[in-house]
Amino acid sequence: MSTGDPLPSTFVPRHVPPGRRTAVLLLTCPDTRGIVAAVAEFLARHGANIVEVDQHTDHHDGMFFQRVEFELDGFDLAPDEVLPAFREVSDRFDMECELRLPEQVARIAVLASKQPHCLLDLLARWRTGELHADIAFVASNHTDHAEACAFFGVPFHHLPNELGKPAQEARLVELVEESGVELVVLARYMQVLSEDFVARYPHGIINIHHSLLPAFVGAKPYHQAYERGVKVIGATAHYATAELDQGPIIAQDVARVTHRDSVEDLVARGRDLEALVLARAVRLHLAAKVLVYGGRTVVFG
Amino acid sequence: MSTGDPLPSTFVPRHVPPGRRTAVLLLTCPDTRGIVAAVAEFLARHGANIVEVDQHTDHHDGMFFQRVEFELDGFDLAPDEVLPAFREVSDRFDMECELRLPEQVARIAVLASKQPHCLLDLLARWRTGELHADIAFVASNHTDHAEACAFFGVPFHHLPNELGKPAQEARLVELVEESGVELVVLARYMQVLSEDFVARYPHGIINIHHSLLPAFVGAKPYHQAYERGVKVIGATAHYATAELDQGPIIAQDVARVTHRDSVEDLVARGRDLEALVLARAVRLHLAAKVLVYGGRTVVFG
Amino acid sequence: MSTGDPLPSTFVPRHVPPGRRTAVLLLTCPDTRGIVAAVAEFLARHGANIVEVDQHTDHHDGMFFQRVEFELDGFDLAPDEVLPAFREVSDRFDMECELRLPEQVARIAVLASKQPHCLLDLLARWRTGELHADIAFVASNHTDHAEACAFFGVPFHHLPNELGKPAQEARLVELVEESGVELVVLARYMQVLSEDFVARYPHGIINIHHSLLPAFVGAKPYHQAYERGVKVIGATAHYATAELDQGPIIAQDVARVTHRDSVEDLVARGRDLEALVLARAVRLHLAAKVLVYGGRTVVFG
Amino acid sequence: MSTGDPLPSTFVPRHVPPGRRTAVLLLTCPDTRGIVAAVAEFLARHGANIVEVDQHTDHHDGMFFQRVEFELDGFDLAPDEVLPAFREVSDRFDMECELRLPEQVARIAVLASKQPHCLLDLLARWRTGELHADIAFVASNHTDHAEACAFFGVPFHHLPNELGKPAQEARLVELVEESGVELVVLARYMQVLSEDFVARYPHGIINIHHSLLPAFVGAKPYHQAYERGVKVIGATAHYATAELDQGPIIAQDVARVTHRDSVEDLVARGRDLEALVLARAVRLHLAAKVLVYGGRTVVFG
Repeated sequence: MSTGDPLPSTFVPRHVPPGRRTAVLLLTCPDTRGIVAAVAEFLARHGANIVEVDQHTDHHDGMFFQRVEFELDGFDLAPDEVLPAFREVSDRFDMECELRLPEQVARIAVLASKQPHCLLDLLARWRTGELHADIAFVASNHTDHAEACAFFGVPFHHLPNELGKPAQEARLVELVEESGVELVVLARYMQVLSEDFVARYPHGIINIHHSLLPAFVGAKPYHQAYERGVKVIGATAHYATAELDQGPIIAQDVARVTHRDSVEDLVARGRDLEALVLARAVRLHLAAKVLVYGGRTVVFG
Repeated sequence: MSTGDPLPSTFVPRHVPPGRRTAVLLLTCPDTRGIVAAVAEFLARHGANIVEVDQHTDHHDGMFFQRVEFELDGFDLAPDEVLPAFREVSDRFDMECELRLPEQVARIAVLASKQPHCLLDLLARWRTGELHADIAFVASNHTDHAEACAFFGVPFHHLPNELGKPAQEARLVELVEESGVELVVLARYMQVLSEDFVARYPHGIINIHHSLLPAFVGAKPYHQAYERGVKVIGATAHYATAELDQGPIIAQDVARVTHRDSVEDLVARGRDLEALVLARAVRLHLAAKVLVYGGRTVVFG
Repeated sequence: MSTGDPLPSTFVPRHVPPGRRTAVLLLTCPDTRGIVAAVAEFLARHGANIVEVDQHTDHHDGMFFQRVEFELDGFDLAPDEVLPAFREVSDRFDMECELRLPEQVARIAVLASKQPHCLLDLLARWRTGELHADIAFVASNHTDHAEACAFFGVPFHHLPNELGKPAQEARLVELVEESGVELVVLARYMQVLSEDFVARYPHGIINIHHSLLPAFVGAKPYHQAYERGVKVIGATAHYATAELDQGPIIAQDVARVTHRDSVEDLVARGRDLEALVLARAVRLHLAAKVLVYGGRTVVFG
Repeated sequence: MSTGDPLPSTFVPRHVPPGRRTAVLLLTCPDTRGIVAAVAEFLARHGANIVEVDQHTDHHDGMFFQRVEFELDGFDLAPDEVLPAFREVSDRFDMECELRLPEQVARIAVLASKQPHCLLDLLARWRTGELHADIAFVASNHTDHAEACAFFGVPFHHLPNELGKPAQEARLVELVEESGVELVVLARYMQVLSEDFVARYPHGIINIHHSLLPAFVGAKPYHQAYERGVKVIGATAHYATAELDQGPIIAQDVARVTHRDSVEDLVARGRDLEALVLARAVRLHLAAKVLVYGGRTVVFG
């Protein structure tokens, strides 16, 4: 936990997961022969026991994606030696590599506006130990959630719109950097982030959009859905990119609706979807199960 | 059945529904006090036993919609007397009324192109008694399904594209009118119908679109879905209107997909969705459970 | 709200529903002719405008169920005059009647044990105005949730198991009666209530069971589901009855699982289902949309 | 195709999948270090290009499961040399191995009774090229489906109940063995197979049960579901074992139902589920994506 505050007892996690220390390698490269064998041989030679392998070949684009999770117990390389040693493999196959170590508990920041449902959902999941991350801080353009953050024991920063977007974002960048945050979660944050801000954190910002993208981009998607008379609504969690609502999709889910559902009903049904889909995407990202390629994601569920 | 052919024994319906003869009144009018009571009182006064009432008030538009199903046993009006007698109510409330009598087994036509899945699904449901309708004929711009139609005992008409659209549609109109068809089902019919043709049968043509509208209108929606990297695909049955893929939505359904699904996989997953959603929409229409208002539907499920 | 505490600002409801004052009549009787007309005529005669009617005929058992929601504006009967005046109808058709008035904001009690997810979910929905009820108190056989209840501003009572079940339940009855509670919600309350206690509140206790009943009754349903190797798990909200896990089902929902899901994964997936399904059932009950007959429910969604 | 009959043109498959010839190794062994590397190294050494790897470690039981699909182009072992050569790996890790070669187009038999929906669905999928298998024959204890089988061009055998179960099953065994069938699909076959018959084909018989097992085992599950008042129904495809409805589950799916659904409605809704779930299970089995261990399945979706 990021704070020294005593934890409200509701949130003491009861089932600490059994502590096999594992690391994850995430690999992307052009598809060719021998990749699987080369990676497995490297790990075996250094004493790593592979506990999970997921891979995907995109035959259309000729790309190969792999996630390898292996136990560190018995592994003969120190954390900072892994990628250099692995260069014998990664150079051969022209790989992009990412290494996640169990010591690296991700630090995340959550941005919210007035609506509380996604924020509260994330705070409760964090406090009960369901998110393997620290919430470094919550920031909002309103003050509504200050007390809730105090209760959950997480720092709260008010970044009013009155600052103007450049100052608001500059302060946000400071906060992110001071606190070592590597993932920014937009939990129904109703301000459009600047291209500069978004470009600073590629695949480092997850947004929840309250429609089943690409349907109903932009404002008031539930109103649009009501007007169109759809029988299914949805929510979409995606990485933020410069183009609004166009980023790579991580998770989506849906709910059936009928003519009986007013716009307000759609909004209420949607709240549950939004919180669930956002939490799912954050969990997948934190578990290093998401790779991005060509505007799409490979999600190793 | 529309033909004199002996029915292949696979398709002899085994569970004929118990024959309570019922009629349905479908009503649309501005919302005001006393409608429910006036309708119920009229039916009670004429000896009708109401077996099912569904209604909906659109508070936003101030409209009222009702479906009343009542037993004809004991009812003291002849079929052609009902709407005239009901005018005392319908005039008072400025109602649009529709009456469906059990004698009116709907006659439907199915248009298909090369893909068989929606057509076969409808033919099998019809032959096993699941559709309360007669299939008057199948027409196609190809000859592929002639044998299947012969097997199922339904007339097949080939309307080749070589005729040119005007002649093709003129022949179709002839066929529809000769055979008393009141619902045309586009079972993955890949020709765009002219505005004139569509305008001739308002709420009389049901199309299946292979996406979750309004996402991915137009051609090759599964390719579009693959490119966008969605995690959910869908199918939409809607009434055809002059504007392509913009008609009132009757039914939609979805399936989860992942990065592993190629375009071909999406197409295959979609086939099952398309057949199910189209059959559901046709069944709802035939049961007089769909009302259209303002580009949306009220579907009394 | 039940307390004088200032509301944390996160939870100030922003969209107060527009205040058309409506009442609901819930009717159950043997099916026969003329019921719909008689009810509608009674309401029309007394100046009530019907805004919603739902009804269901169980042809198998010959029973009729109706929910009528009508505006009180213009209605010429005082609250305590309605049922007596309605006796002209209800006696004729041998009806069981229930009347819900908008003044009657239901008071509910929530019982929880150590797990927080269902309790927190209900508290947050209550505080954001999504539940049209007051939470009179939370009681638990543990002390864990005292602080969370203080934060949400709801009285918390500790009823330790050390009291013994008779004293524990006697205290609970006192609390329920003192505070005018009409619905007790078991939010993963892990104590089996006595037959006496359950019998005291027929259709007044909603439980969440962490399986898709009737599969996996009793203890450790996720372990049972894992052992059986199911591909779908679920949760069930039902009225508590004397026989464990056998009460009338109000709501169920499901999630897909795979061989990759350990028991712990099923538990985690299930938490989301449990919270959603329980909230849905409580909302339906509070909106007077649930009727019970013959061990089953009619749920007017 | 198994017959010389000309194919009705409806069913000419239009999209023949591109012909990369691949083989599949299915491996089960106790979990230990080095398995992944050893398998990958073996295949790389023999020139195989791995196109897909799926694996699963059951930490609870300490078991490892793997499916490796590799291209035969460039592979330096003949089909009958693979398993002997692989013994250097399989013996070391105490593996159970199965090899599937592209030449081995599975031959399947379908058993049906009077209900046509699952049978027709499989026949249509087969004829349109969706099932990578030949349907060697259909057998039934009734004659209803003889004409449909003739239309689809598949041999039909009538095995009347009047033969008595021993003679009926003896004939079935003869047919299965004569025609080299390796998978028997029970497409709503309403006869209980003897323990002897089932034991003869371990994981070689797929049954569809019309409930979400383990709920509602045995007869008339939709009646049971109706009586219990469930809000979700389902269907389950599983391998048949000696104990009725207890075999390893391959696939399940669900549909929401309400109080409005009569038993007949549940039956009708269920038909669609049954056909879909059975087809999904057959497809997974044919693609060598199902491993069985300890009464559960590992399904590499």
